[in-house]
Amino acid sequence: MPDFQNATKTVRWPDAETLNFLRELREKSPLTHYITNQVVANFTANVLLAIGASPAMIIAVEEAGEFARIAQALLINVGTITNHDAEAMLKAAAAAHEAKTPWVLDPVAAGALEYRTRISSELIGYKPSIIRGNASEILAISGAIGGAKGVDSTASSAAAIAAARKLAVDTKAVVAVSGEVDYITDGETLVAVPGGHIIMTKITGTGCTLGAVMASFLPITNDPVKAATAASVIYAAAGELAQKNSKGTGSFAVAFVDALNLLGTE
Amino acid sequence: MPDFQNATKTVRWPDAETLNFLRELREKSPLTHYITNQVVANFTANVLLAIGASPAMIIAVEEAGEFARIAQALLINVGTITNHDAEAMLKAAAAAHEAKTPWVLDPVAAGALEYRTRISSELIGYKPSIIRGNASEILAISGAIGGAKGVDSTASSAAAIAAARKLAVDTKAVVAVSGEVDYITDGETLVAVPGGHIIMTKITGTGCTLGAVMASFLPITNDPVKAATAASVIYAAAGELAQKNSKGTGSFAVAFVDALNLLGTE
Amino acid sequence: MPDFQNATKTVRWPDAETLNFLRELREKSPLTHYITNQVVANFTANVLLAIGASPAMIIAVEEAGEFARIAQALLINVGTITNHDAEAMLKAAAAAHEAKTPWVLDPVAAGALEYRTRISSELIGYKPSIIRGNASEILAISGAIGGAKGVDSTASSAAAIAAARKLAVDTKAVVAVSGEVDYITDGETLVAVPGGHIIMTKITGTGCTLGAVMASFLPITNDPVKAATAASVIYAAAGELAQKNSKGTGSFAVAFVDALNLLGTE
Repeated sequence: MPDFQNATKTVRWPDAETLNFLRELREKSPLTHYITNQVVANFTANVLLAIGASPAMIIAVEEAGEFARIAQALLINVGTITNHDAEAMLKAAAAAHEAKTPWVLDPVAAGALEYRTRISSELIGYKPSIIRGNASEILAISGAIGGAKGVDSTASSAAAIAAARKLAVDTKAVVAVSGEVDYITDGETLVAVPGGHIIMTKITGTGCTLGAVMASFLPITNDPVKAATAASVIYAAAGELAQKNSKGTGSFAVAFVDALNLLGTE
Repeated sequence: MPDFQNATKTVRWPDAETLNFLRELREKSPLTHYITNQVVANFTANVLLAIGASPAMIIAVEEAGEFARIAQALLINVGTITNHDAEAMLKAAAAAHEAKTPWVLDPVAAGALEYRTRISSELIGYKPSIIRGNASEILAISGAIGGAKGVDSTASSAAAIAAARKLAVDTKAVVAVSGEVDYITDGETLVAVPGGHIIMTKITGTGCTLGAVMASFLPITNDPVKAATAASVIYAAAGELAQKNSKGTGSFAVAFVDALNLLGTE
Repeated sequence: MPDFQNATKTVRWPDAETLNFLRELREKSPLTHYITNQVVANFTANVLLAIGASPAMIIAVEEAGEFARIAQALLINVGTITNHDAEAMLKAAAAAHEAKTPWVLDPVAAGALEYRTRISSELIGYKPSIIRGNASEILAISGAIGGAKGVDSTASSAAAIAAARKLAVDTKAVVAVSGEVDYITDGETLVAVPGGHIIMTKITGTGCTLGAVMASFLPITNDPVKAATAASVIYAAAGELAQKNSKGTGSFAVAFVDALNLLGTE
């Protein structure tokens, strides 16, 4: 168990504030623009629908900026970025920044590959509300030594706390580090969200869709720390529930969406 | 309950003609070319396989026209259109028109975004057999005031009947409006297909894949009204069955494919 | 039942060597770079995670070569190839060849469409360890008369054995032909892997993901015939298990991933 005694607070499900945010999200169904990788495009839509958001993946260079102005939140995930995608992402981020649409950056595999690390840095210039990644990605983006292996984290989330704090201070974004314990920091406060289950790392997209859920919570909480915390808390709870209702990784993915869909409704 | 008393006829499962078409589709397994959005690419293939069609997603500018000539039916869905996709879609539509391959256009989020609205209009020049959308999209395409919110419909399907009739007359396409009741019109007759379940709006792709299923029925029925009706009828039936065999939206999506796969086989 | 008496050997689950390779794969979790079609991008990641591999889909022209050097194995599948993808695939294949990263080519629908047939031939110049396809694709690539219908095979796998042997001799790649019986040949030996279930052809991606699994086995077996055999054997076993634990094609896909995930762990 990693040490999270230095956290300002620890939040777990059931948590009254998280439940209230979740209910408000289901009621308001925020239009969430997402530009994500091809691997999780479907899973992201189904996860966002499951929690009650209204998702739309709009990726054309001709449309991404226009839609980022209309939407209530935006997620940009560089997982399968191409140079066409990069152009659309930069337009969306610039428009979001200008229109004050709150947005989340997920710099998948930053540090492991030069091109996406550079594009991610450019994107950060458009002031994301939240930067979410695993420890290796946060270490890489923060300028520390990462050594990301594919999209998996080889460093523990606790090992990236100092880098996360520094990145938050440098960028004014809230930084969320996913791992056995999720850590969320604005540079000063540090929230720890324990829980979840190791099987969550054995289906694709639990990290990527977590970033999307954080985006959907942004217009609900009007507070990036609270948005990242609420998303992490329901993910940990849904992961634990799904593990109990599944056999292997195939049925886990299905049960996970069910759990997100039904959480707090009983 | 919307008013569908002005419908020429109302069709529900079980329906003998629909069952016959479904059996013929399973036997003939029509090669269905589809160019759809990244979000539902997988779900579309699995839905088409579940009903017995033979799907292939071919999206290269170099290949889309060639394949639209070989295929027995074509679906074009502009959900995550890029300018590369637009070029391939226009080539596929032109080739389908020339080779008399019947095809379906799904103008996702038309009206909400200028680029795709324009491309959708260009595509309509190549004479789709069916235009399928939700009420907002049909209103927008028909020139009426839409106000589409993302890919969701904010107007009821009944509210788009007049626009659908007008669009059918203007384009000579059959127009299918999805909603609590699905309406299908060639400008004169109006078929109403009630049924389904509200949970169908909480998984991604029930609308998008419905367009693909309509495409697969085109070479079976040789009649666009009948193709759109048969597809809508089995969708409503599968949605109701799946809702009984699922817990949340995750298991619903799985049960929905099972229901399409097993419908009428017992 | 096709005749496989001319096979050098026949392998079925349970098989001690396959189980050992599977255990080693789970332990070493080889970083598997894949460039596949949009239809199966998610399913491929979940299948690779289910067997214990570490997948990453990297498709940018700017990154594909760099990542193919880092990865321990590579899959290239031309299913929804575009000209952007083709450029990335050629860079990845060239880098893999130079860096001695073993790789698998899946020439989906080769023979049916000119563009991908030409790109597939170019890719073969970079010496894949394995070429995997259905009978029509292998016949087409081998220069014989194919007549592929979409991505389905209209010829039986047994009918492609001679073409597979010739292709193996011509290219020095191991050739794997999927069908009711899978055949694997290096030009001399011929391994037959019977089993599986016909329902596997009714969900998308059982062939495409099989190629990815073969790639993940390459750094484990250090022998392409053994990698292709191990992948085919666990696929046949998982297909049979999943069929027993499912109702229709929707639940089959879920049960199939569960079966791959749990195979040999009880």
